Parts: sequence; C-alpha cells; structure tokens
Amino acid sequence: MSQDEQTPGPGLSELRERLAQFAVDREWGPYHTPKNLVSALSVEASELLEIFQWLTPEQAANIMADPKDAFRVRDEVADVLAYLLQLCTVLGIDPLTALAAKIERNEERFPLP
Amino acid sequence: MSQDEQTPGPGLSELRERLAQFAVDREWGPYHTPKNLVSALSVEASELLEIFQWLTPEQAANIMADPKDAFRVRDEVADVLAYLLQLCTVLGIDPLTALAAKIERNEERFPLP
Amino acid sequence: MSQDEQTPGPGLSELRERLAQFAVDREWGPYHTPKNLVSALSVEASELLEIFQWLTPEQAANIMADPKDAFRVRDEVADVLAYLLQLCTVLGIDPLTALAAKIERNEERFPLP
Amino acid sequence: MSQDEQTPGPGLSELRERLAQFAVDREWGPYHTPKNLVSALSVEASELLEIFQWLTPEQAANIMADPKDAFRVRDEVADVLAYLLQLCTVLGIDPLTALAAKIERNEERFPLP
Repeated sequence: MSQDEQTPGPGLSELRERLAQFAVDREWGPYHTPKNLVSALSVEASELLEIFQWLTPEQAANIMADPKDAFRVRDEVADVLAYLLQLCTVLGIDPLTALAAKIERNEERFPLP
Repeated sequence: MSQDEQTPGPGLSELRERLAQFAVDREWGPYHTPKNLVSALSVEASELLEIFQWLTPEQAANIMADPKDAFRVRDEVADVLAYLLQLCTVLGIDPLTALAAKIERNEERFPLP
Repeated sequence: MSQDEQTPGPGLSELRERLAQFAVDREWGPYHTPKNLVSALSVEASELLEIFQWLTPEQAANIMADPKDAFRVRDEVADVLAYLLQLCTVLGIDPLTALAAKIERNEERFPLP
Repeated sequence: MSQDEQTPGPGLSELRERLAQFAVDREWGPYHTPKNLVSALSVEASELLEIFQWLTPEQAANIMADPKDAFRVRDEVADVLAYLLQLCTVLGIDPLTALAAKIERNEERFPLP
C-alpha cells in the first residue's frame, strides 16, 4: 500500500484554491488573463517536452530513474497542472467534469469491438 | 450552491484509472511512450492556445459566454488534462503530490511581504 | 542539377514582402500584433509536431515517401516560416542576420576539438 | 538605404549549409531525427512565446526598444529558423518553394474583393 492510499494527500479542489489565493495575495490578477494563462500553459508543456526532446525512446522511458531528471519532470508536470487549474479558475471551468464528459465522447468515438 | 458541491463528480484518481483502462482496452500502450505523450500534451496545449490567438484581451475574457466556444475550450482543457494524467501514469508520477510540492517551493520563492 | 539550381525560385525577402502586402490588402494589421503572431507561430510549430507525434522514429524518417503526408509537412513548414517572417516584419528583425549571428555564437559555444 | 541593401548578408541557402556542416562536424546526426528536430522547433517557438507571455499588448509592441529584450527575441527567432532549416534538410524540403506554394493557396483561399 502506497503512502497516498494510507493518508490521502491534498485534493484537486484544495490545490486549486491554494493557487487562486496565492495569486490574489501577490496581486497577480491583472496578469492572469485567459490569454496569458493559456500562453503560459503552452510554454510549460513545451518545457516538459524540452526535457525529452533529444532522448531516445529508451532513455525517455527510464527518465525517472535519475533523481535529478525525475525532479525536473515532476516540477514541469506541476507547472502544467498549475496553469491549467488557474486557467479553469478564471474561465469558470470544472476540469474534472470537462474530462469526464470528454472520456464519454471518446468512448463513443473509439468503441470497443 | 453549485451542483458539484451537492453531488461531487468523479475524482482525479478515478478519471486517471478510466483513462488508463481506456488505453489498455484499445491496445494503445505501444503508442503511449513518455516521448509521444509529452508531445501530445504540448500539441493539445497549443490547440487550446489556438482558440485564443487572434482574440483581443476583452474577447478572450468573454469566451465562455458563447456556448460553441465554451464547448471547444472545455474540450481542449479535457485533452490537456487527459494527456497529463496519462503521462503521469506511464512515468509513475502523482500529479497532486507534485503540485503540492511545487506550491510550497513557490511560497518560498515568492514570499509575502 | 535540381530545378532550384537552374532557375532560382523566389527569395526570402521577396516572400516576406508578399506576406506583408497580403496582410495589408486584407486589413489584418490589427490582428498581427507581436503577441498574436508569436502565439500563431507556436501553434503552427505544434501542428507540425502533431503530424509526427504517434510515429515511430522509423515512420517519421520516411514521412516524405507518402505524397499526402509530404504535402501536410510542407504546408506546416510554410505556415511556421510565414508567421516567423511576419513576426520579423512587425518587430523590425532581419531573420538571416539574426541567424548568422547565432551560428557564430554557437561556433564559440560548441568549439570543434 | 539600410546596410542589408548595400551589402547583402548571407543568404538562406548559405546559412542552411552552414547549419548542416555544423551538425556534421559535431556528429549530431543521430540526434537530428525528424521527430527530435520538430520537437526542438516547437520548444524554441515556445521560448519565443515565453518572452511575451505576461506582457500587455503595448509592452509587447515596444519590446525591441530594450536592447536586452531585443537580443533575446533575435536569439529565439534565430533558434526557430535554425531548427526549421535543419528539419527541412533532413526531410529534403525547400522551405522557400513550400512558402511560395502556400502563399498561392492562401491567395485563392482569401481572395481580395
């Protein structure tokens, strides 16, 4: 049993609220326009891609074995998720509801035989 | 009180498992390498950016007022989240733990006065 | 000897001027802000990446063998170059001078043994 | 009359050949697969976007007034062009011919009144 299963960590809603409060406390509201946040999300996704760009498929598959690389990957994954959640906050989107709806559309689009 | 607060929808872990099972059922494993998934994540983030690229800041701020635009935005948000979760699955990353750690680092990096 | 060597095609400056005139004729100036053009450039680069995202390295290396794929790749390469040139126009940058300077910096950064 | 008009700088073909020789000299061939180069192109386009992501439209329009910012923008423009040319080399694409063909298609797609 992993540690997460024993003691559940912070939930998505709680982290989303912390991110929102973090931005309010620093008066970042004027910068957090939808257009800026969606650019930042795209830039962070590319920073994640940058880690992998020159790796062979085999090197990419083993990236988490190196603690320094693993830290970078987790750090960029967190940045992508952070901007995605902040974008959802300013646009009034519930990301989990959006994803559940998309999975249902994909189940119709790619039916099992 | 929103509907989400009354009846909580699917959680992140449940959606992540559905996505993993979806890929297993369709035998997409060979395509879901870290390098491919991180590329797909980056491409989906750009598709979200594409919706906003020619809009003025004002038009961007009002994008959810149009049902068709709102659908597109939610659809691309879901795609970004889906590939992020699938990447986390193949790399063995817990995205919420990664985000919580990042928020803590950011609180040290951008201290309040 | 290829056809290009016999009869040189349009030069970069000429194409850049055609793109600038094209935008003027259609009154696209208000949309062609630096921020919008750099977003569009990034989106087009991702559309090029999208063509390759699920391919194996071998499939990617042979992509130009299929006329339909080759057309898509050339079309997206053209879009990336078009937005790059239009960005250079609005910012007053000479892309060839910028590239020559960068190559010189790289020759210092990565010296030959 | 600008300096470029008096003494034409390096042409696109010459720079493309220098980039190809640069990679050969450093034995970078194995890394310069189409899939890797297209990822690198996308990453560089995002690094260009990163410079602009938090700027207002007004700040973005004046970015070249600051020498340090102007250097960064020229540097990233050069990186985007470099990877685009290197991708064209490995795929056997003439970027100017591709762009001329695209402009012609766009003239049909967006006809003048």
